[in-house]
Amino acid sequence: MSSEQMAIEARGASRVLAALSSERRAALLRRVADALLDRQEEILVANAEDVAEGDAAVAAGTLSAALAKRLKLTPAKLEVLADGLRTLADGEEPIGRVLRRTELAPGLLLAQETSPLGVLLVIFESRPDALVQIAGLALRSGNGLLLKGGKEAVRSNAALHAVITEALQPDVPAAVIGLATSRAEVADLLALDGVIDLVIPRGSSDLVRYVQQHAKIPVLGHAEGICHVYVDAAADPDKARAIVLDSKTDYPAACNAMETLLLHRDLAEGLGPALLDALREARVTLYGGPRAVAAFGLAPAVDLHHEYGDLACAVEIVDDVDAAIAHVHRYGSAHTDAIVTDDAATAERFLDRVDSACVFHDASTRFADGYRFGLGAEVGISTGRIHARGPVGVEGLLTTRWKLRGEGDTVAPVGAGERKFTHERLD
Amino acid sequence: MSSEQMAIEARGASRVLAALSSERRAALLRRVADALLDRQEEILVANAEDVAEGDAAVAAGTLSAALAKRLKLTPAKLEVLADGLRTLADGEEPIGRVLRRTELAPGLLLAQETSPLGVLLVIFESRPDALVQIAGLALRSGNGLLLKGGKEAVRSNAALHAVITEALQPDVPAAVIGLATSRAEVADLLALDGVIDLVIPRGSSDLVRYVQQHAKIPVLGHAEGICHVYVDAAADPDKARAIVLDSKTDYPAACNAMETLLLHRDLAEGLGPALLDALREARVTLYGGPRAVAAFGLAPAVDLHHEYGDLACAVEIVDDVDAAIAHVHRYGSAHTDAIVTDDAATAERFLDRVDSACVFHDASTRFADGYRFGLGAEVGISTGRIHARGPVGVEGLLTTRWKLRGEGDTVAPVGAGERKFTHERLD
Repeated sequence: MSSEQMAIEARGASRVLAALSSERRAALLRRVADALLDRQEEILVANAEDVAEGDAAVAAGTLSAALAKRLKLTPAKLEVLADGLRTLADGEEPIGRVLRRTELAPGLLLAQETSPLGVLLVIFESRPDALVQIAGLALRSGNGLLLKGGKEAVRSNAALHAVITEALQPDVPAAVIGLATSRAEVADLLALDGVIDLVIPRGSSDLVRYVQQHAKIPVLGHAEGICHVYVDAAADPDKARAIVLDSKTDYPAACNAMETLLLHRDLAEGLGPALLDALREARVTLYGGPRAVAAFGLAPAVDLHHEYGDLACAVEIVDDVDAAIAHVHRYGSAHTDAIVTDDAATAERFLDRVDSACVFHDASTRFADGYRFGLGAEVGISTGRIHARGPVGVEGLLTTRWKLRGEGDTVAPVGAGERKFTHERLD
Repeated sequence: MSSEQMAIEARGASRVLAALSSERRAALLRRVADALLDRQEEILVANAEDVAEGDAAVAAGTLSAALAKRLKLTPAKLEVLADGLRTLADGEEPIGRVLRRTELAPGLLLAQETSPLGVLLVIFESRPDALVQIAGLALRSGNGLLLKGGKEAVRSNAALHAVITEALQPDVPAAVIGLATSRAEVADLLALDGVIDLVIPRGSSDLVRYVQQHAKIPVLGHAEGICHVYVDAAADPDKARAIVLDSKTDYPAACNAMETLLLHRDLAEGLGPALLDALREARVTLYGGPRAVAAFGLAPAVDLHHEYGDLACAVEIVDDVDAAIAHVHRYGSAHTDAIVTDDAATAERFLDRVDSACVFHDASTRFADGYRFGLGAEVGISTGRIHARGPVGVEGLLTTRWKLRGEGDTVAPVGAGERKFTHERLD
């Protein structure tokens, strides 16, 4: 089957899915959860083959140990995945939520309601868990789904895909979740802007960049997380120390980890050097911007627009909050940027003016996360400005529809001045 | 200046604009309104030159009379445009509206607020009024704007652009609204996905299609409006007649006009032929799908996916509401589709299942319009499913930001199980 045919069938099947009642869609998710546990034997056998091949590839030096480690499924992991699906089933119904109601004129009622986006393409690497989570989100929100996993997990993904789509029978055609298996299909899929509505790359920044460059379809995601913490002259030293350390060291490879520490010039002595010492004690390698090199004798940073993704970061000195904001706009990636200060006006100035998806005051950049934000399952973190921004929950998989209910209404009498709009917002 | 430089400067200036208080941004709009009237002399002189050249082009057969007619500005039109800007100034502040507030944990407050999208590119044809309306929307919503008008209105656009950007001095750099003048710049601008956030083509479907095909930037708009009215077996005959006539004849060139009339098979005698007679009386030329050709002896439609945009439409017979829905999905453009029926369950089935931006029951398709929907100024009508759908008001020019306010909070204690999220939704 061609990629286009797969996408067209997914859209057709998604309409069957979306037309089910909320209860029946929730029941389907519970059926999938049961099937994952009932058929765990065959899933784990397929996974063991992927893991064995992965281990061999690590030994041969063709796969990183980190990627190989994320491949492995266990009965406990399947239990967690099944629980996640049941939580989704129990959660709020995403489709048909009324966002706005207006009486256009007496008897003429307009409602804007959430509806499924249509067909999603999700490209993910290595972790087969992701397949189950994404399928759950798509099923809950009435969307068709095309999946492309990494070749390391090809057997695991095929087994999970079979278990999930068979559990949907006979209510929803299996085509509602398509599984692309060859790398060549990706390029084809990324060109299908007429039949696929959104592509979500989940994986390395190389993957995200490839997708952003090649997709005709809108992309939800982020290629870079160059997050800043600006420590103001009026910062509380204990808060500054805690936030700087947490932002860099809690999980240095995460996209929401601090990559650049900005210090107010008044901190060039005192708190500034103390923060650098604390980072060094936590085994963080420091690189300086021009002024930090001069003040602290740091090794110069090659580029201040750089994601270390490791126990390393850049440091620079700025004159004041406005200079910090300008630095963030110039070198950042509009992901997450934080200020530490006890001065409320300075804090609000930073929050109002820094043009990033997430702007924080006296809090670690590591809070930028769908689960921590209370959004439930996270679809991704978007640094784009269209559709959804920052951590994205299931709302990122929805669009809206306008429903108008009349009594035989026509526009001609309005045009002729015989009837007037009331435009009364309801609720 | 290169297109890219123009876009970068517009983004810088948009940050100055967005940082102004709501009152000052509103005051700027009033100043622009005053300037339009104070300097109407020079605007009208420039416009008269465009109009004279346009009339010559019509005489030479190189410009359509319809386009030429839309060129002309008058003191009364400028008065209306100035009033529109004052209405925008008096309206609700679009930036900083809180969409969601969550207490993540005691003392840690998250707010999702509306913020400007960034830099918009608007490509419009002929009507210089559009420049003023679009500039007003961009200024109100704190966005940078790049404009490309038609070459027929080049002098009018330059005059309006000068008046508007000079009225912004000294508060906002003139670069906040850039005016591209050459056709060649459009291709350059459409490739600037790094610096332009959204492109809005306002004009013919050829223009929209060109932009959709060539833009790396997301496009808000619609190339086609293939709208259906389905008259069910349980339709009230008077309502059906009124809605069918209004949907087709009120303004046949509009994107929300009916292009295909679908009749339930029970109406092949009685109401069906009566509706066709009413359309013919209104001088509408009728073309049939296969079953309508057989039943009514109509000339066959060449393609049921066709926008007549004139006093002409297609007619087809379908078995029931589900067949009508399938027809709409197969041949429609997901713009606006309506059902006429007195059967509430059938109506809800149609509204729930037809996957279009606007779905109407017992109302004319002509209501699909930003002003009629009560959205204020209309940015465009989107048949895309990302970001905004259907008639789009100023919200289409906004994105959101997540603001988190803490007291020195870090994620490490949560990870260690020493602190728990409360995730309490506020408001």
